[in-house]
Amino acid sequence: MIQQIEFSLPPCKRGFHLITSLIEKKLESLPEKGLLHIHIKHTSAGITINENADPTVRLDFETFFNKLIPENSNYFKHTSEGSDDMPSHLKASIIGQNITIPITNYRMNLGTWQGIYFCEFRDFGGDRKIVLTMYS
Amino acid sequence: MIQQIEFSLPPCKRGFHLITSLIEKKLESLPEKGLLHIHIKHTSAGITINENADPTVRLDFETFFNKLIPENSNYFKHTSEGSDDMPSHLKASIIGQNITIPITNYRMNLGTWQGIYFCEFRDFGGDRKIVLTMYS
Amino acid sequence: MIQQIEFSLPPCKRGFHLITSLIEKKLESLPEKGLLHIHIKHTSAGITINENADPTVRLDFETFFNKLIPENSNYFKHTSEGSDDMPSHLKASIIGQNITIPITNYRMNLGTWQGIYFCEFRDFGGDRKIVLTMYS
Repeated sequence: MIQQIEFSLPPCKRGFHLITSLIEKKLESLPEKGLLHIHIKHTSAGITINENADPTVRLDFETFFNKLIPENSNYFKHTSEGSDDMPSHLKASIIGQNITIPITNYRMNLGTWQGIYFCEFRDFGGDRKIVLTMYS
Repeated sequence: MIQQIEFSLPPCKRGFHLITSLIEKKLESLPEKGLLHIHIKHTSAGITINENADPTVRLDFETFFNKLIPENSNYFKHTSEGSDDMPSHLKASIIGQNITIPITNYRMNLGTWQGIYFCEFRDFGGDRKIVLTMYS
Repeated sequence: MIQQIEFSLPPCKRGFHLITSLIEKKLESLPEKGLLHIHIKHTSAGITINENADPTVRLDFETFFNKLIPENSNYFKHTSEGSDDMPSHLKASIIGQNITIPITNYRMNLGTWQGIYFCEFRDFGGDRKIVLTMYS
């Protein structure tokens, strides 16, 4: 059995944001056993799983990825949409735009410290469309 | 319901290639609702989703990844298959060799600017085997 | 049809480890056609697919990722759990904590050279919980 929900995430600041509870609220009820697929319909934002307790982890993610892919690198050709654009595309493919999470006993089967990060790589990314697909 | 198709992609030049239409052609008909899983059966090629309009994005991907993982790094031990080999393995695990895409209303539910990139990391990669699995 | 198995992987040395046979042993029988999802319930370990023959590939992965994300980088704020902690979180999101593999003819449909790597990013990671979800 497959259920799908598409929704818009309101604009987020550039950075890494914990959205585990937001996703849980979108899913009224979970099956006993299954999988949840989360897809971001954009090429300059991403989704990943990481540490859900200490907010400095998310800050360190932002700093690290900005150093890994510096804006204004002189070899970029795709520059017409701003200095944050090409780095955003690269970050999106390194982090990924979709994940799948097991569902067990009517809950997402994440580890104790695992949370879902929405990753906004643009300065002004605007609304972001997300598709949830659950199968059981 | 699960459908599977395995096919060979003819040799591609080293670089990032848009294969959205090619994948669509392999799938005669899509279900109303479901998921499509794409798996590359190789360890020196990858698959990702990114910007489908401006070809310079794909060029910037190639340049960035070559700078991120330089060939002939003096600490590589796995060098017998050529200088492009070990960097290809690393790129494959950073980009990933499989993705899952939601299917909605008989179509892949990608964002307006999302396309599927086949990533050839070897200089002469040859044919590449791809498995499509669709469930609905 | 969905089957799920959760198990603990005994402590592994920091590094990249081939676990294809271990995963196969956990799965008593595979369906004719389907998908296998593997999820690591941790934020400082990962899972990926890569070259299964030459052990120096796994050594080069360890060296490369240590150079990509150096310990003791002076801008890290999340440092209370040791110098290997923040780099582990970053590696986990770059490599990823889950993969999906096609099942064809009662076997994982991996390429000839593809093996499953468990990636332990901590010096003393301890037991690691893994969830296998198979659907057919």
